[in-house]
Amino acid sequence: MSYGFLEGMRVIESSAFVAAPLGGLTLAQYGADVIRIDMIGGGIDYARWPVMPNGRSLYWTGLNKGKRSLAVDLRKPEGRQLVADLVAAPGCGILLTNVAAPWLGHARLAQMREDVITCTIEGNPDGTTAVDYTVNCATGYPLVTGDGAADRPVNHVLPAWDVACAAQAAFAVLAAHGRRLASGQGAEIRIALADVAFSTLSHLGVVADAQLLDHERPAIGNDVYGGFGRDFACRDGRRVMVIAISARQWASLVAACGVAAAVAGIEASRGLDLRREADRYEARDAIADAIRPWIADRGLAEVAAAFDAAGVCWGIYKTARELVAADKRVSAANPIFETIDTAGVGRHLAAGPAPRFTGVDRGQVLPAPLLGEHTDVVLTELLGLSGAAIGLLHDKGIVAGPHTGHTS
Amino acid sequence: MSYGFLEGMRVIESSAFVAAPLGGLTLAQYGADVIRIDMIGGGIDYARWPVMPNGRSLYWTGLNKGKRSLAVDLRKPEGRQLVADLVAAPGCGILLTNVAAPWLGHARLAQMREDVITCTIEGNPDGTTAVDYTVNCATGYPLVTGDGAADRPVNHVLPAWDVACAAQAAFAVLAAHGRRLASGQGAEIRIALADVAFSTLSHLGVVADAQLLDHERPAIGNDVYGGFGRDFACRDGRRVMVIAISARQWASLVAACGVAAAVAGIEASRGLDLRREADRYEARDAIADAIRPWIADRGLAEVAAAFDAAGVCWGIYKTARELVAADKRVSAANPIFETIDTAGVGRHLAAGPAPRFTGVDRGQVLPAPLLGEHTDVVLTELLGLSGAAIGLLHDKGIVAGPHTGHTS
Repeated sequence: MSYGFLEGMRVIESSAFVAAPLGGLTLAQYGADVIRIDMIGGGIDYARWPVMPNGRSLYWTGLNKGKRSLAVDLRKPEGRQLVADLVAAPGCGILLTNVAAPWLGHARLAQMREDVITCTIEGNPDGTTAVDYTVNCATGYPLVTGDGAADRPVNHVLPAWDVACAAQAAFAVLAAHGRRLASGQGAEIRIALADVAFSTLSHLGVVADAQLLDHERPAIGNDVYGGFGRDFACRDGRRVMVIAISARQWASLVAACGVAAAVAGIEASRGLDLRREADRYEARDAIADAIRPWIADRGLAEVAAAFDAAGVCWGIYKTARELVAADKRVSAANPIFETIDTAGVGRHLAAGPAPRFTGVDRGQVLPAPLLGEHTDVVLTELLGLSGAAIGLLHDKGIVAGPHTGHTS
Repeated sequence: MSYGFLEGMRVIESSAFVAAPLGGLTLAQYGADVIRIDMIGGGIDYARWPVMPNGRSLYWTGLNKGKRSLAVDLRKPEGRQLVADLVAAPGCGILLTNVAAPWLGHARLAQMREDVITCTIEGNPDGTTAVDYTVNCATGYPLVTGDGAADRPVNHVLPAWDVACAAQAAFAVLAAHGRRLASGQGAEIRIALADVAFSTLSHLGVVADAQLLDHERPAIGNDVYGGFGRDFACRDGRRVMVIAISARQWASLVAACGVAAAVAGIEASRGLDLRREADRYEARDAIADAIRPWIADRGLAEVAAAFDAAGVCWGIYKTARELVAADKRVSAANPIFETIDTAGVGRHLAAGPAPRFTGVDRGQVLPAPLLGEHTDVVLTELLGLSGAAIGLLHDKGIVAGPHTGHTS
């Protein structure tokens, strides 16, 4: 765990891929005891890319930090019963899953423990399958990503809806847990990835814009819709993203690049007031033309010094390697990062929760477990099984202990 | 409000743009009384695009659904004191903000109310400014978005880090609120947008991949990294995203397109087992070549019928207008959506929380307030001010009532 806020909360996570595991990670890093259930030998995401040369998945170990792991044969009725028993166990009573299996259905679990909380992540609200890419293609965003020069849509690379869904699942579980503490009630929660995406479009005004104004955002490359923001190349080829959202940021940018006269000329000739965000959007090409030479004449270091001195809102385009190699925000100097040792991976930087609570112990960022590392101790702690009973489960191939052979 | 889970929680939100308002929206839609504070006449984001012809912002109204609004002159000391008094008021004690103003600093508020919870969203962890675009450019994603044919990076359009930050802020506030209920302790929370992004990169394995293997994801267009997924054009020009992550999805895709023989040929000639995800990634071009003619020979309706019958994981590329016009997932038939009436906007679809709690009343999706709509009632309820005292604040220009003139 990291923070201790959720000490006493225990969650069974029967999951794969991003949304459910990342939701469980959030709970674990706030102090919940999250026990991830996997098929013996690993589930569908156990070897997902990126992977170490030995086959150990950096994806799986990244998403399962600080959880305990139990390996069980989920095809066998006894294995399924064991998982249901763990969910319903005293001191547990929470299931987080994206496996819509009837044997893990809420009704069945609620018969075993009336106040059970289940949170099931699904693709579409009708229960049909969808993943981040097959939801995102319907949002309209891929058709307006990039400059529209290609004849095909451009998908995002970050699984953004999975990431948002994970946080909403963690929030819903926490809200339901608070209600259970207060009133003793359980909860059946369902979250569709599609609903996460389309509700976000509503919150951002996209749905109303399309419905009421029959309006579609244009494909405007890296420009910021409705304001001024664009990427530029420095003399040394490094690229920067430059933005002016607030009036102060705009004044800083104009001052840093020394373009006050050019700006006044744009304003005069076009009847605009570039202190207004919408006017900057209208004149964005002219503004970019004014700024471009100043940036193109300077190397990144000189641009950086001038922009920082003036208070410009800007950033540097980096590869992931450049980010990790030399950006202090991704280093042990940042309190949210720590160097940890993950079995089968080695020592590497890993993040705890992004939120920082002043004066609250962050604990340690704990590494992901080995698959099945906690099988025996969980069965003892949660179900009170004897060593002999656990041994029998091993003998029958219903559970398994630590899996260390990562070469696939 | 929508759900009643957070009844009794009251939050002062002094905010602008996406992350803080969307975090407040989450709390409001779970039942908290969220009071948004804005500058008289509207803050920096009050007229942000998209906007109605009368100037009313669909962005602002989308992000402030179900909140109460208080308009105050934030430049005047009396106005600032009023906001601090509201945060410290009995029955309140929570501030959510992205305005790093000293007069709203935690230390000052904690002197007024010891158990105050403040959640401040910032750009970088050192307090310097950053926004979604200037954080995202450093993640490495824009450099691997699209097919790499252009000589410049491709930014995402969805402000994905803002969306993720909002949910993490709401979660952090809820966790701190739970602790305060149990122990009486307040909390000072800071969340940097950059930390949200870079911690996510750690969770997804990107940081470890770069650090340990010096590895960078390639720009692979719309292909799904490490598996099989790609967009295809139907005979009628409509595009679809097709994915095979699980072995079952792969079998469905092979069956639907009738490409079993071609798949066997690929496996034999390249020594691969395409039931394995990593092998599908390696052979993704050959797989796409096999599938492409089947899709290109059929209109969308025929593709849809065959894919759905076979259980393929797929989606249709849509514009936002197409989505809102004809996708039942964005309609009043979906329980998370409702038609509401927003002053200055009219009747439109709007979403409540994406999570659905079985048997729990969703309440109504409430519209955004008029700016300053609740100025008087909030001052009465929270601070016990008399009508005369409130009148004096109006006369002195420290607060203002409802703002209905949206034409900018």
